[in-house]
Amino acid sequence: MVDAKTSLVVTDTSHSPYARLKPVPIENVRLEDDFWAPRLRLMHEVTIPSQYVLLEETGRLFNFRRASGKVSGEFKGLVFNDSDVYKWIEAAAYSYAYEPDQNILDLARKAINEVVAAQDEDGYLNTYFTFERKSERWKNLKDMHEMYCAGHLMQAAIAFYRATGDRTLLDASCRFADHITSVFGPGKRVGVCGHPEVEMAFVELYRTTGKKDYLDLACFFIDNRGRGVIGGRPYYIDHKPFRELSEIVGHAVRALYLNCGAADVYAEIGDKTLFDALMRLWHSMTERKMYITGGVGSRHEGEAFGNDYELPNVRAYAETCAAIANFMWNWRMLLLTGDGAFADIMELTLYNGILSGISLDGKKYFYVNPLADRGAHRRQDWFECACCPPNVARLIASLPGYFYSISDDSIWVHLYAGGRARIMLGGSSITVVQSTNYPWSGEIGITVYPEEDGAEFGLYLRVPGWCREAILRVNGERFDAPVVSGYARIHRPWRYGDRVDLSLKMPIERVISHPHVMENNCRVALKRGPIVYCLEGVDNPDFDVWDVFLPNDAPLSAEWMPNMLGGVMVVRGEALAFNHEEFGSRLYAYRGDVRLSMRKVSFTAIPYYAWANRGSSPMIVWLRAPENLF
Amino acid sequence: MVDAKTSLVVTDTSHSPYARLKPVPIENVRLEDDFWAPRLRLMHEVTIPSQYVLLEETGRLFNFRRASGKVSGEFKGLVFNDSDVYKWIEAAAYSYAYEPDQNILDLARKAINEVVAAQDEDGYLNTYFTFERKSERWKNLKDMHEMYCAGHLMQAAIAFYRATGDRTLLDASCRFADHITSVFGPGKRVGVCGHPEVEMAFVELYRTTGKKDYLDLACFFIDNRGRGVIGGRPYYIDHKPFRELSEIVGHAVRALYLNCGAADVYAEIGDKTLFDALMRLWHSMTERKMYITGGVGSRHEGEAFGNDYELPNVRAYAETCAAIANFMWNWRMLLLTGDGAFADIMELTLYNGILSGISLDGKKYFYVNPLADRGAHRRQDWFECACCPPNVARLIASLPGYFYSISDDSIWVHLYAGGRARIMLGGSSITVVQSTNYPWSGEIGITVYPEEDGAEFGLYLRVPGWCREAILRVNGERFDAPVVSGYARIHRPWRYGDRVDLSLKMPIERVISHPHVMENNCRVALKRGPIVYCLEGVDNPDFDVWDVFLPNDAPLSAEWMPNMLGGVMVVRGEALAFNHEEFGSRLYAYRGDVRLSMRKVSFTAIPYYAWANRGSSPMIVWLRAPENLF
Repeated sequence: MVDAKTSLVVTDTSHSPYARLKPVPIENVRLEDDFWAPRLRLMHEVTIPSQYVLLEETGRLFNFRRASGKVSGEFKGLVFNDSDVYKWIEAAAYSYAYEPDQNILDLARKAINEVVAAQDEDGYLNTYFTFERKSERWKNLKDMHEMYCAGHLMQAAIAFYRATGDRTLLDASCRFADHITSVFGPGKRVGVCGHPEVEMAFVELYRTTGKKDYLDLACFFIDNRGRGVIGGRPYYIDHKPFRELSEIVGHAVRALYLNCGAADVYAEIGDKTLFDALMRLWHSMTERKMYITGGVGSRHEGEAFGNDYELPNVRAYAETCAAIANFMWNWRMLLLTGDGAFADIMELTLYNGILSGISLDGKKYFYVNPLADRGAHRRQDWFECACCPPNVARLIASLPGYFYSISDDSIWVHLYAGGRARIMLGGSSITVVQSTNYPWSGEIGITVYPEEDGAEFGLYLRVPGWCREAILRVNGERFDAPVVSGYARIHRPWRYGDRVDLSLKMPIERVISHPHVMENNCRVALKRGPIVYCLEGVDNPDFDVWDVFLPNDAPLSAEWMPNMLGGVMVVRGEALAFNHEEFGSRLYAYRGDVRLSMRKVSFTAIPYYAWANRGSSPMIVWLRAPENLF
Repeated sequence: MVDAKTSLVVTDTSHSPYARLKPVPIENVRLEDDFWAPRLRLMHEVTIPSQYVLLEETGRLFNFRRASGKVSGEFKGLVFNDSDVYKWIEAAAYSYAYEPDQNILDLARKAINEVVAAQDEDGYLNTYFTFERKSERWKNLKDMHEMYCAGHLMQAAIAFYRATGDRTLLDASCRFADHITSVFGPGKRVGVCGHPEVEMAFVELYRTTGKKDYLDLACFFIDNRGRGVIGGRPYYIDHKPFRELSEIVGHAVRALYLNCGAADVYAEIGDKTLFDALMRLWHSMTERKMYITGGVGSRHEGEAFGNDYELPNVRAYAETCAAIANFMWNWRMLLLTGDGAFADIMELTLYNGILSGISLDGKKYFYVNPLADRGAHRRQDWFECACCPPNVARLIASLPGYFYSISDDSIWVHLYAGGRARIMLGGSSITVVQSTNYPWSGEIGITVYPEEDGAEFGLYLRVPGWCREAILRVNGERFDAPVVSGYARIHRPWRYGDRVDLSLKMPIERVISHPHVMENNCRVALKRGPIVYCLEGVDNPDFDVWDVFLPNDAPLSAEWMPNMLGGVMVVRGEALAFNHEEFGSRLYAYRGDVRLSMRKVSFTAIPYYAWANRGSSPMIVWLRAPENLF
């Protein structure tokens, strides 16, 4: 039985007093383009079903059956493996909301039945802490991910409830949430989870159920972090109270999930000290610790943020989950503020650092996303610690939910792709149709079909930070809209079929880095619109892509390749190539003792997200170039 | 009672059939210069006594008293803490051999008495595996460092025996060695230690006692590594049999100690497959994985070697112990081959990557040795994992033993410093007096005083690889000696007082890196002779040393500063400084959107080893410079 769908919004700020923007449900958005529509189809046709098979094969579903007594044996895998099942259910829910595929629904219900059967009478639910380990529950909050798993359960339950109206998992997660609120909170036990996640889940559960205890506990977790309860190490973002943080440090996913939770709490309670801390952390990350791809977390050691300007390319960690968490945090900041700077980071991360995490065929993944490689780093079918695959699935499956928002009297367009949306504004429905070949073209046509002809409202179109020149036309006439915080604002009465054309000039740009990013000295990266490019050996067999030197006057051109890598705009250019082998076996030499010869070459660059989908060969984002700083 | 001294050679290849060079005992060498002589004095006056106090304060000696039943309580610190005591005893022995200081001897005997009292009746000796943990002995070879500690015990015992003739610790270590040979070996248990070290110790114990079992067991450990006995991970250098290794990977100290052991085994058994593997590893390290300082082990993660050309500056790990191990390995390769390429690495590492590990006052240490820093990295009094402090003490205390070697009919001079040595060659004594201000000057005078006037022998003087132009004079006359494998060879009859002058041209050089060392693109390092220079903020208060741009025609000059940092030759230069703050809060920018202004500045560079001895300020080795590669 399929219950009545409710409305699947990803982050429900509809009633959040301190959020400026309100969400538009996933099912009200259709993507009809050549970029995202096929990727969403791949989700329900390939990725989500194939991940279900892996959840079975790797014992993740077995653990639930074991916990419910259906089978016997040892717990399999890592202590937080339940969360992979939950993230997968969440992905399935988003996918189902967008495209009601019976197969996905059946799989999700199978998984949910296993989950629910494994719940204890007192509401506790974690398959690791069963039987002989029952006495260890809540004993090691720092390391054991119990609340982290609980948070993912809640998020899955909320998404599935919103997608289907089915309360089975929601009720189970509320029972668990109630169990947690009976143990932790003011006057009860003081504790926080070593891996933040449950904070945002509790806020969303509050939004879904109206139960204030859940919001209070989220506040409690934010308030009590950094007070030594779990040891005080930066890895856990426990070295300082949240409101005192200024530099983003520690395990990247933990740091960013915590920020998501704090942003969600802020949306409800409006404590400016939270917002100020979030802004300090945002500046710390975006101005000193983020890859050009939006990837974050420079260090393999501790999967962590590094020092300011510590952005190694080959040794980038840039975990796919961290890019997703970056997107999720910026989404929340955008909802709070309506500032396009946050949407810029969402878009950047989406098209580069996140999308690189999944293969074009939807079945292989990167956990780590380097920006240069000698051909050794390849996509995997799965990981022992498999946080990234279901995370990238839930992110992409939920994507339609991030394109639009509304404020009191305006429709906001954050992301661009051909398609349509039905948006409720002030009790009236407006259909917005996007016609564009974004991200390959910056020409965006938006046609508005208000239910009520002549309805007055604002249409706010994001003018991306990457764009130096944007031209707006309304019904063919040049229109000088004010651009406020990255959004061109058009307030007017709208007739049925009124068309706005936004032309974002999208040349190929050479990007340079802050001089203290040592690996990028005398290097440029190629970027066109939101897309970061890289050179991969497979396209450039006549030279080593690490040996390319790109003169400032080297001609560059974009060329559409419909049959390559699922259809991509490549960048072709003329450049020089030195031959690093002429340096010989030396590692160091006296200046003047060696001069590498140069020769002219033609190169092809592809979008970074598409690398490592063919044979193994070297890849590089940052190309040698003349000194461009001074 | 002080027993009769025997002869303290660091690595006794006197009877090793496959070693080309034989050692000259420490006590036959006097360093009378301004560089090393004060540092050796500092060892017995400050470093070694102060480390003894720390061995007490941190419970390392307590652990021995506890094991022998003198005191009760819990074992203190890390499982391998015994090794710190052993390394300290070894340092004390070298120091005592060189400068018989009664205080050092008394302290060493106190430590030795505690060690010996803690030995079990069956010979086993490790204070962690006592009482309740007795049953865990040899159960976890991979992680528990039992043989590692045993190896350090043997090395300490050998050094103390050679320094004093006192067999107390030697006998104890032989009892332990006999215990180990009773457990492990052909027909017995197959096992290897997760942390190599015992291999070289067993070879040296064989050399000291003549007991072939010890050599056989060293061979056994080399042979059985990489066969899955301890899990097969590269971290432990267990992923392949030693003879199949070609790329140097894994934990740097482990890898290099293993190489030391393999080199020692080769010296005795002459198996070319061992030597070939050592050479492959040496090329892998020196041509692709070594810092300009001789420091190695690029990664914090796993204290490990990185990929080829992975040599980050701020995030260099370059553990002091790894630099020491690098020196130790190259010493052994030098003894095997007489090839100056190995002595070059010893010298490079000694003056830079090792010496940076100890403060000028002899009481503070670096574990990690970055090549650039923002002022955060400071020397520490001690570490919880305190491998480095006693290791740097034993290396510097043993230094006189590395200056000279002999082959059948020749004296080899590897390192240069004012001083003298009495060298036995063919049953006759020759005194060699060095007169030089090395490493600040390349002018080296060597006067030879053969016991037997007119004795014919070769005098082999190393012509360092860093030197582009060397001039040799014998008794004032230009002498065109053949330079073979880095040694200028002078074979002749020597009169009492014959003088050789070696003039090594020592300009300030700009060094560049292989183009795939990404952090060093468009950067140069300053080097003069064996000394690598850095800029430290404290000497350059008017600009940020990270912002220096050094034109190729910038004048550079060396200036002797007798009262600075214990007496150093500084490099002064004119350069440009940009202002990174003009890049603003941006992390990335489109090319052309920002141009940093430049201004002329005068700078002072100091030897890298001397950094972080004054207040906290930024430091950098690799300076921005024009493209010098093509």
